[in-house]
Amino acid sequence: MAPPTDADALLTAARAGDRGTLARLISLVERGGAAAHEVGRTAHLQGGQAYTIGVTGAPGAGKSTLTSALVRHLRADGDRVAVLAVDPSSPFTGGAILGDRVRMGDHALDEGVYIRSMATRGHLGGLALATPEAVRVLDAAGFPWVVIETVGVGQVEVEIAGAADTTVVVVNPGWGDAVQANKAGLMEIADVFVINKADRPGAAETRRDLEGMLALSSGAGGDGSWRPPVVATVAVDGQGADDLWAEIRRHRAHLESSGALARRRADRLGDEVRRILTARLLERATAATGGARFADLCGDVAARRLDPWSAADELLAGS
Amino acid sequence: MAPPTDADALLTAARAGDRGTLARLISLVERGGAAAHEVGRTAHLQGGQAYTIGVTGAPGAGKSTLTSALVRHLRADGDRVAVLAVDPSSPFTGGAILGDRVRMGDHALDEGVYIRSMATRGHLGGLALATPEAVRVLDAAGFPWVVIETVGVGQVEVEIAGAADTTVVVVNPGWGDAVQANKAGLMEIADVFVINKADRPGAAETRRDLEGMLALSSGAGGDGSWRPPVVATVAVDGQGADDLWAEIRRHRAHLESSGALARRRADRLGDEVRRILTARLLERATAATGGARFADLCGDVAARRLDPWSAADELLAGS
Repeated sequence: MAPPTDADALLTAARAGDRGTLARLISLVERGGAAAHEVGRTAHLQGGQAYTIGVTGAPGAGKSTLTSALVRHLRADGDRVAVLAVDPSSPFTGGAILGDRVRMGDHALDEGVYIRSMATRGHLGGLALATPEAVRVLDAAGFPWVVIETVGVGQVEVEIAGAADTTVVVVNPGWGDAVQANKAGLMEIADVFVINKADRPGAAETRRDLEGMLALSSGAGGDGSWRPPVVATVAVDGQGADDLWAEIRRHRAHLESSGALARRRADRLGDEVRRILTARLLERATAATGGARFADLCGDVAARRLDPWSAADELLAGS
Repeated sequence: MAPPTDADALLTAARAGDRGTLARLISLVERGGAAAHEVGRTAHLQGGQAYTIGVTGAPGAGKSTLTSALVRHLRADGDRVAVLAVDPSSPFTGGAILGDRVRMGDHALDEGVYIRSMATRGHLGGLALATPEAVRVLDAAGFPWVVIETVGVGQVEVEIAGAADTTVVVVNPGWGDAVQANKAGLMEIADVFVINKADRPGAAETRRDLEGMLALSSGAGGDGSWRPPVVATVAVDGQGADDLWAEIRRHRAHLESSGALARRRADRLGDEVRRILTARLLERATAATGGARFADLCGDVAARRLDPWSAADELLAGS
């Protein structure tokens, strides 16, 4: 059993600026279980004010440097900002992640910036389930901006980054090979494209390539009302960071004035209710059908006496 | 509504060698719906003999050339073989896929070889759901070997390839960057590793790298009884293809003698029953709760009057 927690008291302390408590809350939601659940419920009722920015792209594309530039802009406006860096948890990628964290170290001493790494857990299907809960905690803790940086362009990373209010997809000149397998996924989630390292050969072709694809697609909003802009940056020199920040603000203004922001957020919450419902129903079915009956029917399926759909029907009839 | 089909008659014709009917059956399962369902049920009861080999790796790693070499070995033994090439359906990857199909053209005139491409569908979450059904059809149609080649190393591709009896992961010297985001996933599914293009610089380091990781992991079987071998190949010259084929046969023999083959297959079918059950329960809950009630509760969640878990509980209580 998880130790008892008083989620409300912890969130109040985090909102008052207690960073140790904030770290503890995120660790709680990472661990899952009853305490995580209580934190998530409470944080949901207290949140709703944070604006989220997703930043994704292939490893080495320059996401951390761009995130750092965004943080600088937000701080210049006086806003507090939290950064969640969602890393694949492979023990074999430690070097790259360490490098990223070191780059973000510019902001390490700034009390208005909170930076946290999260693992996506070790196995297939073990998505970064805790990420939405961590965003909820940061929202309830009063951060008006949460930047979610995901390392990589796999399905999981794309889903996490695509769930943000504004999603920034970072590519480099000659990006084709690095993201070949998931170009369609990236096109679908991008609200703003960045060609970083735009001083390298191939930047013009990459822009043409992107703009050609964008002309074919209906854009991330799906309604054709927003055509994702393509911003060129050289993040290590700070070039283009102003343009990126301007496009993010323009996208936010577009979402707010068109009503799309509220609609997108409501849709995401609806999906979440549906996911929770499915999980509860499965627990219920498993409990009701009992292990032995399930094992018997699966034995029949394995022996080809029964097909999987009929097995599911029999389990449902018995529940 | 799907047109009525006689799945049994179609499968009998496919088993007798009617390739047009086989193509039609796979198109049926790709389309989904009631006809697909009937084909899947019938094929399940008639199958169970095919041995499946998954081949995955980053785009350009040489999967198609290796698959072609495997097909040549199987044909030399007189066995019929089917190849399913599972491609991301992005309209932007047409070139690479066309190239792959051309390379597989060696076998285009061989009646004992059946080659078919399948798309993974256009959107996030739209996994290649039809792939297991297509494998079922090929199994029921009497192919003793089915090779499933997936393009890319994303979560979806890794899941599809990892569901095969023997999974071959193809890397190249200096593979790190191409698969960085999903190295852990690849380590988990690999029964046999291939370092293709092993005549290029860095092959020795790549082997050391892989063997170091394998020493840390418990192997794909999870029980430590099988240590995935690392095979070096230069597929375009045919070098190493014999070794790869020998390792695949050795893995099959290991699975059969240890009882792991039957256990793995039963586990996969159990997972499938669970997935079907969940989908049915969700349909049932959606029908029972009705659209209006769901919309009302989601409205409360969006307005932060209610949290998503409580909304799910209320829907369950009302169903």
